[in-house]
Amino acid sequence: MSSNLDLFYAVIPAGGVGSRLWPLSRASQPKFLHDVAGTGETLLRSTWLRLTPLCSADRIMVVTGCKHADEVRSQLPELDESNIVLETEGRDSTAAIGLAAAILERRHPGAIIGSFAADHLVHSDVRFRRAVREAVAAAEDDYIVTLGIQPVEASTAFGYIRAGEPLVIEDAPSARAVEAFVEKPKLATARRYLASGEYLWNAGMFIARARRLLEVLAENAPELAAGIEEIADAWDTDARDEVTARVWPGLEKIAIDYTVAEPAAKQGALAVIPGFFGWDDVGDFAAVSRVHLGADSDAEINVIGDVDRVVSTGSTGLVIGQTERIIAVAGIPNVIVVDTPDALLVTTREHAQDVKQIVAALGKSEHPEVL
Amino acid sequence: MSSNLDLFYAVIPAGGVGSRLWPLSRASQPKFLHDVAGTGETLLRSTWLRLTPLCSADRIMVVTGCKHADEVRSQLPELDESNIVLETEGRDSTAAIGLAAAILERRHPGAIIGSFAADHLVHSDVRFRRAVREAVAAAEDDYIVTLGIQPVEASTAFGYIRAGEPLVIEDAPSARAVEAFVEKPKLATARRYLASGEYLWNAGMFIARARRLLEVLAENAPELAAGIEEIADAWDTDARDEVTARVWPGLEKIAIDYTVAEPAAKQGALAVIPGFFGWDDVGDFAAVSRVHLGADSDAEINVIGDVDRVVSTGSTGLVIGQTERIIAVAGIPNVIVVDTPDALLVTTREHAQDVKQIVAALGKSEHPEVL
Repeated sequence: MSSNLDLFYAVIPAGGVGSRLWPLSRASQPKFLHDVAGTGETLLRSTWLRLTPLCSADRIMVVTGCKHADEVRSQLPELDESNIVLETEGRDSTAAIGLAAAILERRHPGAIIGSFAADHLVHSDVRFRRAVREAVAAAEDDYIVTLGIQPVEASTAFGYIRAGEPLVIEDAPSARAVEAFVEKPKLATARRYLASGEYLWNAGMFIARARRLLEVLAENAPELAAGIEEIADAWDTDARDEVTARVWPGLEKIAIDYTVAEPAAKQGALAVIPGFFGWDDVGDFAAVSRVHLGADSDAEINVIGDVDRVVSTGSTGLVIGQTERIIAVAGIPNVIVVDTPDALLVTTREHAQDVKQIVAALGKSEHPEVL
Repeated sequence: MSSNLDLFYAVIPAGGVGSRLWPLSRASQPKFLHDVAGTGETLLRSTWLRLTPLCSADRIMVVTGCKHADEVRSQLPELDESNIVLETEGRDSTAAIGLAAAILERRHPGAIIGSFAADHLVHSDVRFRRAVREAVAAAEDDYIVTLGIQPVEASTAFGYIRAGEPLVIEDAPSARAVEAFVEKPKLATARRYLASGEYLWNAGMFIARARRLLEVLAENAPELAAGIEEIADAWDTDARDEVTARVWPGLEKIAIDYTVAEPAAKQGALAVIPGFFGWDDVGDFAAVSRVHLGADSDAEINVIGDVDRVVSTGSTGLVIGQTERIIAVAGIPNVIVVDTPDALLVTTREHAQDVKQIVAALGKSEHPEVL
């Protein structure tokens, strides 16, 4: 079954601040550069290690912001300099993944690419790789393929994928057609989705022939596709900087879900491989708490940091300590305390999403420098 | 009416850590050395300023721990060195006030002393002084006098004084006999006390002729009284250090309520002047919150510190910021956050008393140095 990996290249879009993880995650030090799950590795490094058994280090491309280049190089010393695509500014996932696809198609005609965000958590790397292998097989059959996550709760935080008929594809026995993409639902709808067994979480993982992906893109966002191709033409030449500086800032900011995945679904060109590998986007501190605590989540205060410096009474939740300070919590269930040298966050699991408002307020405050 | 102040001397016992105010209050920097009410002055300095219109600076004696001597001198530069009584270790209020009384009686025979804790808050200094003047008049009539605080709520945090018949004393028109001292009551009892109008809070403020106070003490705690007199005899001689070192550590640790006030009440020798001056012992962060916020207490987050560094959403309560950090609070009503350079406390007004357990836990932890 491993023969179909001969053409496989991985792309890691490493963007997005993860603002609901402030003050752990900052504009200068975003979520993917942190070990937010307490695994001992940053999310970026975990993503890298999850992929290297599928493709050698020289086949992994990272797309990230210029200001994160040094940190990415330091966390991924095996990453080839030619495989770092630096963005002067973020232009959303179509531009990022599209450019990587266009560069890789030029360098390795016929390449099958898989795009995997740098800031998600996967529990079973083995099951993840098994799903990717199936996805690559389906991509060889010219499908655009996504990995759909088997829901474990009626989450309203993710978009959903409605799975259709099983597809008959060699080496991809679990592949199914995708009937539709659905935006983040209300709770009642999410419950219905979960009960039906026909819905999967959209984790934004796409596998396809680079050429196929670019074709679908060109059909649905021709201007954006043309800009990407123009930059890709210049990428491995002396004209890279000039063309990129001229074209990149004008590219439409739009998620690849809208430019490629949804149109492909409508054409019957999108397949999904259901994933049972345990996945979390670790989007807020409730998620950090969940992935860090596992089943024991209601037991007591859990600590990421020096447990000897945390004292609590009548409290449950999570304390993230990044300073030398003593942290004491009394009488707050489900508390979240994030203690960093220049900023402190105090909230509860139930209000983990409210950090977005905090970040918005800080942006307008006297101290936007802490964002 | 001011003539009866000719014999008046004030004693300020400045002891007690105020452990429910950790991490603001520390063993090395106790409550009375802080501006916990946000008035712009420390509680010790406020107490001093409240008294100096009643008696000149050279008539105020401060009893405090050796380790606080420098800070007390720095906060009270007008304090005469001969009026600082330093304790090598705390022996509770009978020893502290008794020794001050015995020293003052020797220096100024016939002295009337008033003892006022260094760590309480009074809202109306003018009304306070009017009450003290009445108390001094009653003390001239040989009563042991206490100021009883008119309750404003059914508090279970204070002991109560049951007021009896009005006394007929010149220049003390509001003086009443004290029928009994009552320990901190349960809530239902406290409500009954409040409704009856016959009960006052015991704020531990005593005014009496020094000689009278020492007589009552000698009747009820003869050994303790003898030890105090022995130290006082040596105090203004070369033998002070030797005698104090020998006798002080053996003195019984007991509150003056039990050795003087309660026995005097039983003898009909205790008078009370009801006080309407607004008083708070600022014993925990709920109290800090209360005295700092006043009527606006449910409105929003209140800040002691740099308000520009605090951001909140869906929260009410109090943030005390003593660092340069940004403090963000999301979704916690009645929150208390105390942010100091080496320790952080997060709790709620409802759990302000639980800080005691935090302090106890820290005492047994790896980091007792933060207490």
